Amino acid sequence: MKYGVTTDYVLGMQVVLADGTAVRLGGPRLKDVAGLSLTKLFVGSEGTLGVITEVTLRLLPAQHASSIVVASFASVESAVDAVLGVTARLRPSMLEFMDSVAINAVEDTMRMDLDRGAAAMLVAGSDERGGAGAEDAAVMAAVFADNGATEVFSTDDPDEGGRLSPPADSAFRRWRPRDRYCWKTSGALAGVGLIGHRDRADRRPTRADDLGDRPRRRWQHPPLLVYDPADIAMAERAQLAYGEIMDLAVGLGGTITGEHGVGRLKRPWLAGYLGPDAMDLNRRIKQALDPLGILNPGSGI
Amino acid sequence: MKYGVTTDYVLGMQVVLADGTAVRLGGPRLKDVAGLSLTKLFVGSEGTLGVITEVTLRLLPAQHASSIVVASFASVESAVDAVLGVTARLRPSMLEFMDSVAINAVEDTMRMDLDRGAAAMLVAGSDERGGAGAEDAAVMAAVFADNGATEVFSTDDPDEGGRLSPPADSAFRRWRPRDRYCWKTSGALAGVGLIGHRDRADRRPTRADDLGDRPRRRWQHPPLLVYDPADIAMAERAQLAYGEIMDLAVGLGGTITGEHGVGRLKRPWLAGYLGPDAMDLNRRIKQALDPLGILNPGSGI
Repeated sequence: MKYGVTTDYVLGMQVVLADGTAVRLGGPRLKDVAGLSLTKLFVGSEGTLGVITEVTLRLLPAQHASSIVVASFASVESAVDAVLGVTARLRPSMLEFMDSVAINAVEDTMRMDLDRGAAAMLVAGSDERGGAGAEDAAVMAAVFADNGATEVFSTDDPDEGGRLSPPADSAFRRWRPRDRYCWKTSGALAGVGLIGHRDRADRRPTRADDLGDRPRRRWQHPPLLVYDPADIAMAERAQLAYGEIMDLAVGLGGTITGEHGVGRLKRPWLAGYLGPDAMDLNRRIKQALDPLGILNPGSGI
Repeated sequence: MKYGVTTDYVLGMQVVLADGTAVRLGGPRLKDVAGLSLTKLFVGSEGTLGVITEVTLRLLPAQHASSIVVASFASVESAVDAVLGVTARLRPSMLEFMDSVAINAVEDTMRMDLDRGAAAMLVAGSDERGGAGAEDAAVMAAVFADNGATEVFSTDDPDEGGRLSPPADSAFRRWRPRDRYCWKTSGALAGVGLIGHRDRADRRPTRADDLGDRPRRRWQHPPLLVYDPADIAMAERAQLAYGEIMDLAVGLGGTITGEHGVGRLKRPWLAGYLGPDAMDLNRRIKQALDPLGILNPGSGI
């Protein structure tokens, strides 16, 4: 949210094309607008346009330790309002959302003394320097309180902040059964749609709860589906639920993938999401660079 | 330097293709990696791939008033070392370089009491919040002093800072004769090469002085050539000098254009800069999207 996406940091690369030519694009120049933005075209192309063998990245100075604010809410709606309130005022370096399922999974694993009765929790951070980080934290704490947070806790202590910041990831690790697959939808799926469209804030991501009864279904943000691939019927229901989550995200103004790309898993939804004209444009580029379709077939575009 | 380039802020657009189709790409989602990065491909394509009729931009909170540091140097080399020293430690929001010609042009126009005898001047700023801006300014002032600055002046006063920050642009306005054309090479031309390649810092941009005698030649950063287009011989010499500046910039690891694109003016140098393979790649994309070549012919790629 604060620092943008990978593409913003890729200045150059060497890429091997379908015909075997190794091409250098961009380079170690912070600004270079000669020719088409081919470097950025290849980033995120998932190996469908060429094989990237070298990248040159733009670096930022190391982040400063974050001031962290944690808040519990009695409803998902209040937490969502708080997110909108924060992002209207500043760019936090972290703004993690957990629903009650995630909170309890974290608490089961890590015993952090979280409020198991809370409907939602936000973990926010600011890595601004000097007094500005604490100033941001105070603003965020005030916004959380204004939106009915039942508990607000702030810290400038890096160790304490570090313990508080990765609980959502821990929840995933906890939930992934050792010998079973799980499908994780993109973290940005509903959230980005919601935050991108402030005018749609009335359409809550909790609509995911309307999707009906699914095996081992547990909705959280990001939504997670765990199923046993050996159970064909269960796998089919999981696939159905997965598609419904994607449709819901797109319907809310979100995307099918905010960070991790399309790959094979999300490919069935790509054309519907992009629409026929944008999909055709993708295919024309693909056709121009890989006419025989030998690069990562079956994946991405 | 601090905030990246335009592409980093374009989230979506509507673009009309060569065949008349209006396509929507991206949209108001801060993160969206579904399909190829076509939005970024169209940014900077200079109308050669389609006509952009709408853009959606990512916004940052308003910048804070900058702390400004101005320093004079007895040699261009010292100023360049100071630039490298600053950028190794932090990301200033402004770092303007002026050589003695520019300094004197500004002083002629604006009577700012600049040091007319200085070989180079740097105007640096930090828009970090709270105490961090003043902290950055102190670091930069110390780096300038360490690199032999003959004079260093700092201010946190926004009005004073505002007066100091745009002198290079003023110099351009002053120098452009009302009824004559001038060619301005990109500000990033030599500078980006230099800053991008710290290992080449020994190859100074002052090599531009080696380019020989040209009519009304005045080297500054960015280099500026003023000539009378009615004087054919003078125009030819200006064209020659312009090409030599471009070659020098590329030889130093810079680019032919850091900000303003290729257009018609710099087109003769594009293929040489990109090399045959990257140029071919540009042409394949162009061919795929505009097979009849009707979009902005003669410009860009």
